[in-house]
Amino acid sequence: MSTPATIVRPGEPDLPAVYSSVESEVRSYCRNWPATMAHAQGSWVTDVSGRRYLDFFAGAGALNYGHNNPILKQPLLDYLSSDMIVHSLDMATEAKTRFLETFERLILRPRGLDYKVQFPGPTGANTVEAALKLARKVTGRESIISFTNAFHGMTLGALSVTGNSMKRAGAGIPLVHATPMPYDNYFGGVTEDFHWFERVLDDSGSGLNRPAAVIVETVQGEGGLNVARVEWLRGLAELCQRREILLIVDDVQMGCGRTGPFFSFEEAGIVPDIVTLSKSISGYGLPMALTLFRRQLDVWTPGEHNGTFRGHNPAFVTAAKALETYWETETFVEDTLAKGRRVRERLVGIAGNHPGVTARGRGMAQGLKFEDAAVAGAAAGAAFERGLLVETSGPADEVIKLLPPLTTSEEDLDSGIDILAEAIAVTVA
Amino acid sequence: MSTPATIVRPGEPDLPAVYSSVESEVRSYCRNWPATMAHAQGSWVTDVSGRRYLDFFAGAGALNYGHNNPILKQPLLDYLSSDMIVHSLDMATEAKTRFLETFERLILRPRGLDYKVQFPGPTGANTVEAALKLARKVTGRESIISFTNAFHGMTLGALSVTGNSMKRAGAGIPLVHATPMPYDNYFGGVTEDFHWFERVLDDSGSGLNRPAAVIVETVQGEGGLNVARVEWLRGLAELCQRREILLIVDDVQMGCGRTGPFFSFEEAGIVPDIVTLSKSISGYGLPMALTLFRRQLDVWTPGEHNGTFRGHNPAFVTAAKALETYWETETFVEDTLAKGRRVRERLVGIAGNHPGVTARGRGMAQGLKFEDAAVAGAAAGAAFERGLLVETSGPADEVIKLLPPLTTSEEDLDSGIDILAEAIAVTVA
Amino acid sequence: MSTPATIVRPGEPDLPAVYSSVESEVRSYCRNWPATMAHAQGSWVTDVSGRRYLDFFAGAGALNYGHNNPILKQPLLDYLSSDMIVHSLDMATEAKTRFLETFERLILRPRGLDYKVQFPGPTGANTVEAALKLARKVTGRESIISFTNAFHGMTLGALSVTGNSMKRAGAGIPLVHATPMPYDNYFGGVTEDFHWFERVLDDSGSGLNRPAAVIVETVQGEGGLNVARVEWLRGLAELCQRREILLIVDDVQMGCGRTGPFFSFEEAGIVPDIVTLSKSISGYGLPMALTLFRRQLDVWTPGEHNGTFRGHNPAFVTAAKALETYWETETFVEDTLAKGRRVRERLVGIAGNHPGVTARGRGMAQGLKFEDAAVAGAAAGAAFERGLLVETSGPADEVIKLLPPLTTSEEDLDSGIDILAEAIAVTVA
Amino acid sequence: MSTPATIVRPGEPDLPAVYSSVESEVRSYCRNWPATMAHAQGSWVTDVSGRRYLDFFAGAGALNYGHNNPILKQPLLDYLSSDMIVHSLDMATEAKTRFLETFERLILRPRGLDYKVQFPGPTGANTVEAALKLARKVTGRESIISFTNAFHGMTLGALSVTGNSMKRAGAGIPLVHATPMPYDNYFGGVTEDFHWFERVLDDSGSGLNRPAAVIVETVQGEGGLNVARVEWLRGLAELCQRREILLIVDDVQMGCGRTGPFFSFEEAGIVPDIVTLSKSISGYGLPMALTLFRRQLDVWTPGEHNGTFRGHNPAFVTAAKALETYWETETFVEDTLAKGRRVRERLVGIAGNHPGVTARGRGMAQGLKFEDAAVAGAAAGAAFERGLLVETSGPADEVIKLLPPLTTSEEDLDSGIDILAEAIAVTVA
Repeated sequence: MSTPATIVRPGEPDLPAVYSSVESEVRSYCRNWPATMAHAQGSWVTDVSGRRYLDFFAGAGALNYGHNNPILKQPLLDYLSSDMIVHSLDMATEAKTRFLETFERLILRPRGLDYKVQFPGPTGANTVEAALKLARKVTGRESIISFTNAFHGMTLGALSVTGNSMKRAGAGIPLVHATPMPYDNYFGGVTEDFHWFERVLDDSGSGLNRPAAVIVETVQGEGGLNVARVEWLRGLAELCQRREILLIVDDVQMGCGRTGPFFSFEEAGIVPDIVTLSKSISGYGLPMALTLFRRQLDVWTPGEHNGTFRGHNPAFVTAAKALETYWETETFVEDTLAKGRRVRERLVGIAGNHPGVTARGRGMAQGLKFEDAAVAGAAAGAAFERGLLVETSGPADEVIKLLPPLTTSEEDLDSGIDILAEAIAVTVA
Repeated sequence: MSTPATIVRPGEPDLPAVYSSVESEVRSYCRNWPATMAHAQGSWVTDVSGRRYLDFFAGAGALNYGHNNPILKQPLLDYLSSDMIVHSLDMATEAKTRFLETFERLILRPRGLDYKVQFPGPTGANTVEAALKLARKVTGRESIISFTNAFHGMTLGALSVTGNSMKRAGAGIPLVHATPMPYDNYFGGVTEDFHWFERVLDDSGSGLNRPAAVIVETVQGEGGLNVARVEWLRGLAELCQRREILLIVDDVQMGCGRTGPFFSFEEAGIVPDIVTLSKSISGYGLPMALTLFRRQLDVWTPGEHNGTFRGHNPAFVTAAKALETYWETETFVEDTLAKGRRVRERLVGIAGNHPGVTARGRGMAQGLKFEDAAVAGAAAGAAFERGLLVETSGPADEVIKLLPPLTTSEEDLDSGIDILAEAIAVTVA
Repeated sequence: MSTPATIVRPGEPDLPAVYSSVESEVRSYCRNWPATMAHAQGSWVTDVSGRRYLDFFAGAGALNYGHNNPILKQPLLDYLSSDMIVHSLDMATEAKTRFLETFERLILRPRGLDYKVQFPGPTGANTVEAALKLARKVTGRESIISFTNAFHGMTLGALSVTGNSMKRAGAGIPLVHATPMPYDNYFGGVTEDFHWFERVLDDSGSGLNRPAAVIVETVQGEGGLNVARVEWLRGLAELCQRREILLIVDDVQMGCGRTGPFFSFEEAGIVPDIVTLSKSISGYGLPMALTLFRRQLDVWTPGEHNGTFRGHNPAFVTAAKALETYWETETFVEDTLAKGRRVRERLVGIAGNHPGVTARGRGMAQGLKFEDAAVAGAAAGAAFERGLLVETSGPADEVIKLLPPLTTSEEDLDSGIDILAEAIAVTVA
Repeated sequence: MSTPATIVRPGEPDLPAVYSSVESEVRSYCRNWPATMAHAQGSWVTDVSGRRYLDFFAGAGALNYGHNNPILKQPLLDYLSSDMIVHSLDMATEAKTRFLETFERLILRPRGLDYKVQFPGPTGANTVEAALKLARKVTGRESIISFTNAFHGMTLGALSVTGNSMKRAGAGIPLVHATPMPYDNYFGGVTEDFHWFERVLDDSGSGLNRPAAVIVETVQGEGGLNVARVEWLRGLAELCQRREILLIVDDVQMGCGRTGPFFSFEEAGIVPDIVTLSKSISGYGLPMALTLFRRQLDVWTPGEHNGTFRGHNPAFVTAAKALETYWETETFVEDTLAKGRRVRERLVGIAGNHPGVTARGRGMAQGLKFEDAAVAGAAAGAAFERGLLVETSGPADEVIKLLPPLTTSEEDLDSGIDILAEAIAVTVA
């Protein structure tokens, strides 16, 4: 979802005229990938000319189970065909009941998470907004601590805790009530963890407004695949608990198994106060989002946060089926971790061949960081020309970020990385 | 989407336990309508017990063409069955191309609207946020004028221009940069239009921050079916133009034909600078939203406002089909207006039988206002028990609001109103 | 203190070079009155060339007892000569004790005002800031209601409740947490008092943030000598009381007898929750300010609001002496009211001779409003050339405002008004 | 000006009743020093009982030339006796001309400072507010960088850049548009200077709003006598210049010779963009303040920032005389530095006798920091009982701060420190 700042193209000659004549200049991906997509299956997308692309982008993390996963597709078609209710706001429906029961049975209960579940509207920004509102309501404080290079969304509340200066400028008003703190390893390991954060919290003369909450991604996808160490996350959780600050983990991109376990924070053994989920929760790329929070924090008044598309039943159908399919056993987690290691090894190899390139990531969120950001952009462009969809992220778009579907076969993983290796090689040559 | 303040129920004994044990207290509609919905067709919903409900609520305006409209359903099933791409962010896709071309051909061009189209994320709040950001960016000003009893959404930017104090309190921070002005007829016709607004705009000593934009609904649905007269809307548009303030019409609920014409502002003959659409734009209750604005205002940087679910192709498919089906000719507009008159006549009749009750609305957004708000709530409850879904709105939930699908047959309209009449009669008896 | 927008002069050729070479462009009065002042006595000022000016400006209301009043001067000289302590922060001093006891004995007790007294720093802006902070702390709410054309000061909190758009622009940040309401007679008497204000307060859907306090001037001096009727003030006080909103009367310019009684609100028979005083409270033009509030509102923590110049003992000395001299009996009030009537009669006469000119004011705050603002400015300039200091005020500087010392003799009042009449006559001729 | 949190006293039994019955609970110094002051001369204050106090507090830095300095007193008495104008807003006066010319001749010109001079209202908070407004107006940015444990004043703009949490809470609204950075040595020298500040400035993804200005004290008096090294100040100035951020030095307490040179930043050889002065600028404890800024930054519109007490002529008289008396030659600077060394040596000696006590300060702003804050408060109380006025500062009031008049004799300096040593000895015993 980064800005295509580094890939300058002369227009979209291959796209229908309506894109340049009618769609707003804000359009972004169609500029980098000037093809009209038609079909999609698993890790593959086909454009109208029949050209096939291996998709290591996967809806920016919204397609962890691949495009049009047939296991999820059938119940979706059955549901729609039989005229089961599609749109229901927050009424009770069979599909919603089944999703809630499945989510509790397969996700919450086995992990000992005594969370309530809110349907805050079907996007990541909606769930982040709900999380921030709830944290402020519960604590009676206004300020939120965010982290450098965080990404949480484009609505005003979510944008105020987002780092990217170009996107922040889009707000048109000063974004306040949020203070950035250094993310793990921001200073290359030189500086002790939290020494600035803890010091200003404990110093009554520091001038820092006492925060309601900390919002953190365990791995910053849009921020350039920055990975927080588990000990850093534990330290952060302990810091929040000691000082009665709520900990919000934004798991919109890294949740639903992207890093291996269902929640990306499981590896650290922490229990956030509030968790946001979206992107891959429906499993089929359908809009859906959840806000989870400790039962004691459920101070909402009925209807205090509402929205028209909270009851998107087709998404509940595929979401429940995805949970039943992939999360009954540990197999999926193990497969993801194994695939992640495989990808990582290959990336380390590529990095070894190119000075100024380093591998980074966790689980199946892996990538390469380029000292020269222009190379990252050019290599991503060369990959597209070779049939691989990968995007850049990071403040200077200096990181090629791989988010392949978790269901991608080992062969396809290898093929994609072969293409990437070649794209980098021709770029730096 | 109002708060069910007036209908107090002892719990949700008829709902599966997971709703009270796992879903957040914020849930709302399932409290008033404690049934688990299963099937839906046109204007009818059936619960798991086989009980049928005539739906005069229609997804809070998201189902103008009825539930699971078969004309839209078939292309949706075809699209999904054939593995056409479902999730595509803002890449070009066949479905998106067809939607854009159809929208331009059937909606923009015939109305002489030289608008650009933004896909801001698939909800009403997303499009309102995009509209406010753009207005601020274009003008370099921060302040927005909203109206008493406005409803624009739950995210921070949208909430700041929303009137409802309970929902505003949910923000947990002071909501600033917005100033409310009196909506049309706020003082019962006693006060001249805009005399306060114009005076403070023109008085350099008034203390009003010069606004970037005015955001207005032509009919306030959530605010209690308050209808702005066309001359008031024209006066507002002229006022904005003279003073170089952008006019945003939030047509999320009243657009897509709810009041007759596609855009609710057409009757007034005005051309807003920015228009928001969502709810019924997909035609099938699928999450989708658009932000439209005059071509000259398209100052967005690529990617400056983004989001994961901007490319929800199933919604594009049904949206294009809905436009082709209902908006090629004037028939649908005429039918809607005729049905609206029919409903209005019946409501005037009911109001005539009950002191303290008055009819209000425009097109197929009609309702009854009760001097005693408790009666409105109780009557809505009695209607539910008789198989009719209607909700209350207004600051005290004093208005029963009818938003039947525009495709509802005359017979069903009559039946529904018969039920409503009876529900009111037993309530006041 | 208005901006000299209407009097354009070619520079300050008569002033020492250091004013244009070293003093900031923000300087203002020395542009309209390009003379270097040397001596001052009572209602007269003499410049370095020996030219005398009759001063109907009186330090913008800071010199109600005239320049260098000999009754106050002697104790001031005695105090300084005998090395009594001059600067003492908020330590106890003899001068402070005497002032507090005198203020309680002559001002608070006779009027039945059970107020606590805060020394917030020695300027009007300081006391307004203290008043707003206290109101917010007491109520836990952030929003303040101000009035059109209000003037309360230049610091950030005071500026946010000030109307003038040029001065507001000086803030460089959006001024929030304040909403303007129409001052009395803002619509020429056509609109019922408070109908907008009360309606938005009582309407839970209005979108108005519930205010902590209302801040009001009983007569808006800088705003153009707008006079609130006593019944309007009473209505406002009752409105605040019914809705538990604190009422702050900013009496910085109109207090200390300017309108007759010591507090300008006495005529209305209301008891504000908080009162600000400054300008003439020291009696000698020395910096001093007070914040008064009902005893129950004194929730300050020791030192929570501090400042270096809260213990300006020379000001306490002259302040106590001024109270003892002028406020033991009713004579001073009666004299002021009589003089005010005299001035008003003459102004009504002048207005009668000139179409488009009207008289306005209360007590000894009187003036003339010109339909053509340029005439007001030119006439003030012509008055200066004839030896009379008067300033313009109002959003367009369309009002000539007379604030003569209350001690001005009847002869001087007549002379000054003769000059003004001539200045207007030559201007409009 | 710190909060007397650590010295709890049973009331003010020795003060006249009017202090507890009428003055607000916000009163502070009179609680710690429960004596009614009468006379004052040089470094000595005498209370009504005839008891004498050696004053090492000096009006919190407002009395650098001592109480009622006879050299300044005579021209003040002459001015007042001869009825020269006292109050003049920003008209030209003889006293103001002389002050401006003297300030330019003795302060600005010899230091090569091409500054314009603004009279922003007579307090430190007023000048800080003017500085912040100007910085925002010039840059078009809103955000300000402040430092941990900064103190800049109690009005809303000044308070937002102040660190103390108790004082911030007094605002009653969230204080925004300011971000604290670590002051020099905040981490005990472990962390490299500015590494956090520079990193977030340069990282376009950091989430830090690009600041208009940095506001800094070269020595934080209220913050606990934290001394910034000259190399840190130089680094800060270079950082600001490279990134086009304005540098504001708040010299309200440390200016006018407190650290030796007239401006405290001279030692570092830097030239701030904006400088604030107040406290000792009048030389006699009379309210007065200046805002100085580079000529190119003088973008004020006439009257855009105004105020009633900007023309406090008695203060101009003593200010000019103080400059002529003390700042024609280098003698005063050298004396101050010598006295500062003398005080420092003694404090180092005391610290050597008491574990957990360290000496700190610069020039004649010297003090002792106590690991056990309670000891600092108790020792200050014991000093008062022995006839020495010293206050505590720092976030926990853990520092005894000495700000003796710069004119204090060496004998008095020694006597005062003898008392302090004894007070500490009896406290820790």
